[in-house]
Formats: sequence, C-alpha cells, structure tokens
Amino acid sequence: MMGLTGNSKLVTSTVGKSTNIRWHDCPIGQDGRQKLLNQKGCVVWITGLSGSGKSTLACALSHGLHSRGHLTYVLDGDNLRHGLNRDLCFKAEDRAENIRRVGEVAKLFADAGLICIACLISPFRSDRNACRSLLPKSFIEVFLNIPLEVCEARDPKGLYKLARTGKIKGFTGIDDPYEPPSDCEIVIHCKAGDCPSPKSMADQVISYLEVNGFLQY
Amino acid sequence: MMGLTGNSKLVTSTVGKSTNIRWHDCPIGQDGRQKLLNQKGCVVWITGLSGSGKSTLACALSHGLHSRGHLTYVLDGDNLRHGLNRDLCFKAEDRAENIRRVGEVAKLFADAGLICIACLISPFRSDRNACRSLLPKSFIEVFLNIPLEVCEARDPKGLYKLARTGKIKGFTGIDDPYEPPSDCEIVIHCKAGDCPSPKSMADQVISYLEVNGFLQY
Repeated sequence: MMGLTGNSKLVTSTVGKSTNIRWHDCPIGQDGRQKLLNQKGCVVWITGLSGSGKSTLACALSHGLHSRGHLTYVLDGDNLRHGLNRDLCFKAEDRAENIRRVGEVAKLFADAGLICIACLISPFRSDRNACRSLLPKSFIEVFLNIPLEVCEARDPKGLYKLARTGKIKGFTGIDDPYEPPSDCEIVIHCKAGDCPSPKSMADQVISYLEVNGFLQY
Repeated sequence: MMGLTGNSKLVTSTVGKSTNIRWHDCPIGQDGRQKLLNQKGCVVWITGLSGSGKSTLACALSHGLHSRGHLTYVLDGDNLRHGLNRDLCFKAEDRAENIRRVGEVAKLFADAGLICIACLISPFRSDRNACRSLLPKSFIEVFLNIPLEVCEARDPKGLYKLARTGKIKGFTGIDDPYEPPSDCEIVIHCKAGDCPSPKSMADQVISYLEVNGFLQY
C-alpha cells in the first residue's frame, strides 16, 4: 500500500471563485480504470435539433456497445434537469450553464473510463467547443443533420407545435438559431429523404470508436 | 434492436425551473451495467474535519477495491471546484450548492454502476441527508471521527494555522460548526490516541461493502 498518501500531488491554487484548494491525485487513475474496462474513456457528444433523434441514437449506441461488453453512460440534457441542473431554466445564460455542467460531468465520466454519451441540442458552437476543450483528445462530436421539416413532422414531444403557435419562445430552429458544427467527427444525415435507422446510426458511431482505438485498452 | 425507441417512457413534467422536460428511459439500465461490472452501484460518502484523512481514505479505498477488480471513482470536493463547481465560492449558500451538486453527480455514478467515493467536509447534517435522500438504499455514510486536536496537529494544508490567525473565516471546527452524523453506516475513530492506518480504514469500509452485498451483482 506504499505511497497512498506519499504520492499525492498537493498543489495549492486559486481557481475561479475558490481559494485554498489543493488537487489530490489518487494512485488509481484513468489508466487503471481503462485497463479494467478494456476501453478508453471518451465523450460522444450528440448535437442536433429537437426531434432529430439524439436520445434514440444514445439509447441504440449504449445498447450496441453494452452488447459488446463496454460500459457506457448516457447524460441526457433533459434528464439532468430533474437533478443536477434543476436550478436552471431555459433563458440564454442558464442554457449555457446547463451545457457547461454536462460537459464537466461528461469529463468526469470519461476520466472514470466510461464511454459517456451526452445528448443535448447544444445549438451554439461556442458552448460545444468549450466542452471539447475540456478533453480535446477524446471528444467525439456527432451532428445529427436531420432537416428541420423532418424533425418538425416527427415532433415527438409536441414542442414544435407549441413553438409555432408562440406558446414556447426561443425554440431552437424556429425562433432561435442552431449553429451546425463546422468540423465535427461524425455527421449523420438522411439520403433522398430516407433517414437512417437507430441501429445504423449507432453502427456508424461504433465503427468510428473502433477504428480510433476507443474500444480497447 | 426492438423497442429502442418504442420502449422509451415519455412523461412530461414540470421540475424546478424547467418545463417541457420528458424523461427518457434507455433499454440498458443500472441493472445491466451492474451485471457487467459484477458489483452494485453505490455512494460511499466520507465526512469529517479538514485533516481527518478523507482524501487519504478515498485513495486507499479506491486502491483496495480496484485490486479486487471493482470499478470506483472518487469525487473530491476540492477537485470539483476546479471544474463543475468553479463558479462557487465558500459562502454558506455556495457550500451547500457545492454539496448538492456532488450528491447529484454521485447519484449518476452510482446509477452508472460504479462505487462512487465522495469526500467532502460536508459539515451539516441537513446537506448530507439531502444527498442520502437521493439514493436511500445505496448511500453509505462514513464518519471520520478524528479529534480536532489531531486534525489541527496534522494540518496538511496549513489551513488551521490560517484559521487560527484569522486569515480564513468560517473554517469548520474553528469558527464554524461541524455536526457529526447521528446515525451513519460507518464510524472510524482513534483508539487511545492511535489513529487507524489508511489500509485499515479502507478495510473497514470494504468489509461493510462485502457484507452488504455491494461487491457482487
């Protein structure tokens, strides 16, 4: 049990609004956990309009990876608003803070060795890039490039209808912008009006993870 | 791949400050992940004075569990202030919010199937109990009951010295109260002035986890 305390790196620093914080480094690190799991921790960040199929892809992806023996965890922007982000509403600064926190938690999960699947509309490039900068080597941005008409026709939550009738304000794609990624790892799109199935979307991401070495230690 | 979307439970609700949120249930749940890991997700919440050895115990515990093949992750209150909680300072309401967020993130890790080890002074019973209420069946509170004199003599970060000379205000144990747990799962204490080693503290927690079925699916 050598070095359990002796190896801790203690560095005092001033960060943000906090002072007198020291960073404790544990002897079991990301590497040990990745070895145990035989995978590399990373964040698959799924962005796209409401109704583009982010949660559906997240579920199919976690299913596909689990059946291959990999440990995943889905951070769903909506679900987190029931817990961690329950103090936030939908005004601009709260939406940005929502994304920031999901990015920080996703980073923890990747550090824990998991393949963390985050799904949020995350309409602004700057917010997504801030999350990417937290883990530049293991951030895989997946853009669900599904046309607005398709998303609106699906309208699984009835939100487009509410936005069109003015009952929701600032709805992405209707009266609030969506900035598509300019340079992301994976783009998923419809061909000749045919949108890919959940399984084929998931397979596209799994192929990427495999080719890029995330599915082995 | 049946039911990937069809089985999603969609329930619209109003939570906190958010409206129009639906809860997406994925086909791979905590149970599937726990089976994969052969353990039960839980939170080991270590509370105690500054210098009582929370981080040391957390490291020894993660080391001991890892060597038995278990997946753990340490949430250190100090470390999170570098990321997720960098917007918070040490005033009373921010300290409470810090603990609330760590509790919510710990819950996510337990849901992911990990043995999540949270170490924070968390001096108030009400804050700790709020975290416990998030996962009543898998919250294991560990009280590091080390006398103030011992902690102050160790003073690994030099904070007691700063508090005694008035350079830090509101320091737990000096000019701010610490409320010991009235009914927690594990108490660790010194006997006749002899404090337990990191390994023996960790073994005490591991025994508890073993006896209570957390180290198997």
